[in-house]
Amino acid sequence: MTIPQRYPARQHALNVKHHLQTKLSDLSKTSIFLSGSLQESDKYSDSSKPFKQERYFFYLTGVNIPGSHVFYDLNKEELVLFLPEIDQDDVMWSGLPLSIEDASKKFDVDKVVYSNEIPNYLSKYDVNLTTDIDKNNQIYKNQLTPGQTELFYALDESRIIKDSYEIELLRKAAKITDNCHYAVMSALPIETNETHIHAEFMYHAIRQGSKHTAYDPICCSGPSCGTLHYVKNDDDLGTKQSILIDAGAEWENYAADVTRSFPINGEWSKEHREIYDSVKEMQDKTLELIKPGQSWDELHLLAHKVLIERFLKLGIFHNGTKEEIYESGASTIFFPHGLGHLLGMDTHDVGGHPNYEDPDEKLQYLRLRRTLQKGYVVTDEPGIYFSPFLVENGFKDVNKRKYVNEEIMKKYYPIGGVRIEDDILVTEDGYENLTGITSDADEISKIVKAGIAKGRSYFHNVV
Amino acid sequence: MTIPQRYPARQHALNVKHHLQTKLSDLSKTSIFLSGSLQESDKYSDSSKPFKQERYFFYLTGVNIPGSHVFYDLNKEELVLFLPEIDQDDVMWSGLPLSIEDASKKFDVDKVVYSNEIPNYLSKYDVNLTTDIDKNNQIYKNQLTPGQTELFYALDESRIIKDSYEIELLRKAAKITDNCHYAVMSALPIETNETHIHAEFMYHAIRQGSKHTAYDPICCSGPSCGTLHYVKNDDDLGTKQSILIDAGAEWENYAADVTRSFPINGEWSKEHREIYDSVKEMQDKTLELIKPGQSWDELHLLAHKVLIERFLKLGIFHNGTKEEIYESGASTIFFPHGLGHLLGMDTHDVGGHPNYEDPDEKLQYLRLRRTLQKGYVVTDEPGIYFSPFLVENGFKDVNKRKYVNEEIMKKYYPIGGVRIEDDILVTEDGYENLTGITSDADEISKIVKAGIAKGRSYFHNVV
Repeated sequence: MTIPQRYPARQHALNVKHHLQTKLSDLSKTSIFLSGSLQESDKYSDSSKPFKQERYFFYLTGVNIPGSHVFYDLNKEELVLFLPEIDQDDVMWSGLPLSIEDASKKFDVDKVVYSNEIPNYLSKYDVNLTTDIDKNNQIYKNQLTPGQTELFYALDESRIIKDSYEIELLRKAAKITDNCHYAVMSALPIETNETHIHAEFMYHAIRQGSKHTAYDPICCSGPSCGTLHYVKNDDDLGTKQSILIDAGAEWENYAADVTRSFPINGEWSKEHREIYDSVKEMQDKTLELIKPGQSWDELHLLAHKVLIERFLKLGIFHNGTKEEIYESGASTIFFPHGLGHLLGMDTHDVGGHPNYEDPDEKLQYLRLRRTLQKGYVVTDEPGIYFSPFLVENGFKDVNKRKYVNEEIMKKYYPIGGVRIEDDILVTEDGYENLTGITSDADEISKIVKAGIAKGRSYFHNVV
Repeated sequence: MTIPQRYPARQHALNVKHHLQTKLSDLSKTSIFLSGSLQESDKYSDSSKPFKQERYFFYLTGVNIPGSHVFYDLNKEELVLFLPEIDQDDVMWSGLPLSIEDASKKFDVDKVVYSNEIPNYLSKYDVNLTTDIDKNNQIYKNQLTPGQTELFYALDESRIIKDSYEIELLRKAAKITDNCHYAVMSALPIETNETHIHAEFMYHAIRQGSKHTAYDPICCSGPSCGTLHYVKNDDDLGTKQSILIDAGAEWENYAADVTRSFPINGEWSKEHREIYDSVKEMQDKTLELIKPGQSWDELHLLAHKVLIERFLKLGIFHNGTKEEIYESGASTIFFPHGLGHLLGMDTHDVGGHPNYEDPDEKLQYLRLRRTLQKGYVVTDEPGIYFSPFLVENGFKDVNKRKYVNEEIMKKYYPIGGVRIEDDILVTEDGYENLTGITSDADEISKIVKAGIAKGRSYFHNVV
């Protein structure tokens, strides 16, 4: 597999054209025009918001310069990049921006011009398809103008299959992330609060050139491991048993998304290990089946079945057969989220076709509802949680509650939860795990203990 | 000075009322209604943008909860906080939000209710003053509705004087920042690229609970120290001489803003030290005059005078007296920015009354144009830069160019620039420097060398 030298913007544009052709009959007088993100200020302030390039724009350009635009002539297959005009004040404070000439070399486009030329291009054609809409993701599908549905379709279908260049970017994000997770697991002597875990991860990510993580790291300890979107990251580790860290680096706008769970003192408690082994089995059994043609729904449901069998053995479930419990939905109390999602520029990447209104509650939160294809990158991230909120909510349904042995279940509250999450590339005949940091319970224990053995003095001065 | 237990929101509201009364005659049927920031999503994505509370709202509440609002009854002096209504889906993923009861204890307000009650409050009065406007800072002053000018005035005049509680927050941000700068100066053995400096700063900031810095750290080496808003932070340190790091932590929305410059190998080169000593004198001479009643313009211009005297001694300036050179504006080529700005919740805090159209080019970029008062917090941040862009731009004016000895000037290009920036509280009869990290050239040299002596193996494993 040859990897191109530059981000393959022109091939991406051709991909989009190909998918558009299946939906729109005549593209001869049509262009695509997309605007990248602007550098925005905070309200009532001169401070800048963090810049994040709009992902569809990046897919068609590979350009991270704020205030850029792109025009794709679908007839001539010509890709034109518009750079913002030079602001002399800005040069004074920030230096010269990239020149037209250097941009032409750096980016895989046919032409680079300044944005004052945009009107000349837009007036060439009857139809300039654009994604641009006023509202955010939650409701944009109700606000489309003619052709936008087809354009989003073509962009999503293109982005869903990762090419060799994109896979290298994802591989690099995954590798950076491996190193960060390893560092976190190894640094327990100086980690006495969740924020230290957060700091350790960020340190190693930034050091490796990933200035922005793909998403806010989730760093939990003990019962808070049961809060799925825990963001406080500020509690003392104290005498708790468990840590869960869900964090991924970003490399040139491509994301990693990895979760590891481990014992604070390196020794698994009985309950923690029981749950860890259950989640590991949920991951192992689903991973093993990943290949083109595999239904993702089925893998998600298989993870539920593994959980139920394990819970019956542990005594957390009782009073029913595995089939009865499966039908009751009781496993959603402990595994409420989906098995995984597409991964790319967005952590929850486009094209997954979720159905949050699905009558089957086990499938409601599954973000990928398609048959796997070669070139998909997905997370495989089963989890088991013991969260008072989730339990209370689930117990409203007596047909779920009756299968749960509350006395036994309560013994697991202190560990909060376990999730194991790896980033998986679907290959010709199976999969490749892009995530290299071990998820083997015994190896993790060794890494944590080796860090502890080094002791606080091994680590450089911390406040 | 007694420091209150909670963020003094009600006193802040009284401050604003006091200033409003000087501008509006009758407040008996008037309220203030402000909305805090929302948790926003990225376009076409379910990922969240980083949350940053709107500063005026925070000043009146001390509340960081997304989607909150506040109503201040100017007649009854009653402060009402509106919390967002509970979203059951959100509880499932993120746990229970703060209850009305706990919020009433935590925040210094008269009443806490859910936001469905907003209409009842807004209908009480004829006039509900609000800051809310569509556009960002650059142009908002042209878009005000009746009363908004007065409201912004009252808010800004209130925020400009920091009370004991705010000073403690600024002190904490400054202290965290001291530790970060010390760590950066001490870690040269593992810093071989600007991004390592960035990482080191962030690590220690997050470890201490400052998850967001007040602004993006500027980490430069060598010639890039001359780029004022350098944001790349990705160049190898190599065999360069100089490092400049401008970075500040944030503590409960209050900012620190500190710059240190130091030699990469701990030994000052002749040129680097000459410029460092010049900048230090610019800072020392201005600091010593800080007290209530002092014109900030004068201090800024004094810094220019110190620079000119130093440059005459170094031979960078020639062909004129210090008065002639001062009049020519030649010093703005090397010291193009202001001596400092107000500091508070915003890094460039409100109320400074800059005049970017000032005919005196030395004063054009000065962000504080007022006489100092007790309770102001300002940065004192002189700098000297050798930037090809700035020089080229300045040399367009032959009346500036003629005073510059280009041959001598060019010897300073490799160091790029030096800035020293401390955070200063104006007190009853002088000032207090909130910044504790040393700016003494010899002490800095010792810190850097002590770090280097420890060697790479002292620091914990890095990739």
